[in-house]
Amino acid sequence: MIKELQFQVAEFRARLSAVKREMVRRGIDILLLSEPSNQNYLTGYNADSYYTPQMVIVAIDHEEPIWVGRLMDRVSAVMTTYLADENIRAYPESHVHSPTLSAYDIMADVIKEVGGEKARIGIEMGGYYYSARAHADLVRALPLAEFVDADLLVGWIRLIKSPAELVIMRQAGQIADAAMQRVIDMVEVGVRECDIAAAVYQQQISGTAGFGGDYPCYPPVLCIGERSVAPHAVWTDGPVENSAVINLELSGCRHRYTVFLARTIVLGAPSTAFLELSRIAVEGLNVCLESVRPGRTCSEVFSAFHEALARHGVEKAGRIGYPTGIGFPPSGGERTASIRKDDRTVLQPGMVFHLMPGLWLDDAGITITQSFAVTEDGCEPLTMAPRKLIVK
Amino acid sequence: MIKELQFQVAEFRARLSAVKREMVRRGIDILLLSEPSNQNYLTGYNADSYYTPQMVIVAIDHEEPIWVGRLMDRVSAVMTTYLADENIRAYPESHVHSPTLSAYDIMADVIKEVGGEKARIGIEMGGYYYSARAHADLVRALPLAEFVDADLLVGWIRLIKSPAELVIMRQAGQIADAAMQRVIDMVEVGVRECDIAAAVYQQQISGTAGFGGDYPCYPPVLCIGERSVAPHAVWTDGPVENSAVINLELSGCRHRYTVFLARTIVLGAPSTAFLELSRIAVEGLNVCLESVRPGRTCSEVFSAFHEALARHGVEKAGRIGYPTGIGFPPSGGERTASIRKDDRTVLQPGMVFHLMPGLWLDDAGITITQSFAVTEDGCEPLTMAPRKLIVK
Repeated sequence: MIKELQFQVAEFRARLSAVKREMVRRGIDILLLSEPSNQNYLTGYNADSYYTPQMVIVAIDHEEPIWVGRLMDRVSAVMTTYLADENIRAYPESHVHSPTLSAYDIMADVIKEVGGEKARIGIEMGGYYYSARAHADLVRALPLAEFVDADLLVGWIRLIKSPAELVIMRQAGQIADAAMQRVIDMVEVGVRECDIAAAVYQQQISGTAGFGGDYPCYPPVLCIGERSVAPHAVWTDGPVENSAVINLELSGCRHRYTVFLARTIVLGAPSTAFLELSRIAVEGLNVCLESVRPGRTCSEVFSAFHEALARHGVEKAGRIGYPTGIGFPPSGGERTASIRKDDRTVLQPGMVFHLMPGLWLDDAGITITQSFAVTEDGCEPLTMAPRKLIVK
Repeated sequence: MIKELQFQVAEFRARLSAVKREMVRRGIDILLLSEPSNQNYLTGYNADSYYTPQMVIVAIDHEEPIWVGRLMDRVSAVMTTYLADENIRAYPESHVHSPTLSAYDIMADVIKEVGGEKARIGIEMGGYYYSARAHADLVRALPLAEFVDADLLVGWIRLIKSPAELVIMRQAGQIADAAMQRVIDMVEVGVRECDIAAAVYQQQISGTAGFGGDYPCYPPVLCIGERSVAPHAVWTDGPVENSAVINLELSGCRHRYTVFLARTIVLGAPSTAFLELSRIAVEGLNVCLESVRPGRTCSEVFSAFHEALARHGVEKAGRIGYPTGIGFPPSGGERTASIRKDDRTVLQPGMVFHLMPGLWLDDAGITITQSFAVTEDGCEPLTMAPRKLIVK
């Protein structure tokens, strides 16, 4: 059997120890991880099977995590995790899309096996893959257990990346750079929006000559011309017009580690006001990056940006950055810290953020962004695309 | 403001009438649709915003559905739905990723406004985008309401496609064909797996010269060589080897309507046994398709396939087909009828299925599939790729 483990077993064990310490601190006996990113983080599991019920169970009294998934995906668990065979469990095909049988009953049996019948069980209430039905089925199957919300318990631990994780994230950054360059090279008046999106995907997945990429957590955001007022609009098959302002946000993804990058591309000569706004945006971004160092808070980094803009009379409220790491659809950002006014999270080496302040001028926006890792004395950029407005 | 409605308003109204009739039959006053595909079906809404709380509310006593989503996505609702402005509601940015504020409180206010305080409210318990937290928040905000599971209520209505929907699904089929042909043309010994996946994506999104495509609900499944024992494994950046058996399942997606297609590609000369199995697979598929007509059940179609294989001493249990239509990540199949032994669903014109019986020989599988629409007297294929083993 092929083994495709992306990290040393010792690294997985260290991650597990950190999670168990936090469980003890919160008085949680058993933690149920429904988020594919958390399953990947703690066991290595990676397959496109997260659309069916799947869980990683961490029990304080059981050494390794236990993966429980669909029978046909068991082999993926053997291939991609470090878990002993006895800690890889599966429910039969009869429990898939069944109106009468629930995969969560099988999971409840495993939970009982590791002493969970009357345990204090942590669950991810806000997770994308913990449905109302999953919760109802588990509560019914474990009537004596106490359920407590442990959403983001693992997320806060994931916030700090290890050196091995940063190696992969640098590769993800290279993929993001390649995809952006691909668009800069190919975009011109008359090119269809769908063909721009297609080029992004091709490059994201082809990656580089040295290593390939994964599919992104989230489609590229392609805000063009008057449709850019709708920030999550889907692309059309219409052509790009003369003088169009293109705001493109994309990501590189390597072994599911995700690094974002956005640039504004103008076809033709931008207006003086737009050029000036882009200079302010880049200045704010640079000042903000220079303010990053361990010990500072997210709020202080936000303030650096805010003050740089205020000097030009430009106001920007709201969040200007979020952490990234392991990502699965439908969203690539982590949901823990935010670079915004009231976030007191203290920066530490190994944290990775996508700094993405968007500025708007009437109906045209500027998004020039930078993904970075916090280092011992500042920050390291994870993408190398020059921080500037692209005029073509 | 640009309007991008993909169907006549009359079609949306007919869909709504069918849903309201079923609500009355089940005694449901208000239906909460969290599934992006159901939101799209009833209102036209289409934007990449489904990763945040978003709901379409259908109230028996309120003529139109009401869309409730994030403020920055309101403009997408105006662009892509037929709804009157008063039926497009939004919650402020303060309710996004907030530890204290819930978007579901805002939704509860809208529900009360349309008489929902003590109503019988249908919810989608098994939906991908109805989390345990969403349910808990709504139950807390509406303590006098009665919640009942209405999962798949809209799904069963969506099972029968209109002529206008079939026009789009034929386009999706053309995209699937183009993506498969692209791989057949480019694959050879030494090509990296990630480059095959990249070519699939490029073609899926570029579409055809006449129309573009959308991103797929689910990544292409690329089962190559010995890794094909793991059906949902992700691709690698390793090269395709000589004599490799490649099972590729992909989809075409147009305005989110999804049509699947899978083929087995062999590089070099396949074994006699493998060739023979592929002939049996195609024969079974053809016999199965010939058995399709309105009035027959899914079970009867399954039996036709089962008997054709049994004549060659080949056994195939389990599901061999599922319906498709509007799809969003993480899964493109509809969760209603199945072509399997015990499914008594009666076929009707307009139903669309992906018939995908996989056959296995030791460690190498054959997946030759066909998406089709049920017609007045049989079925219409939605992809044109010849039903055969591809030898290259």
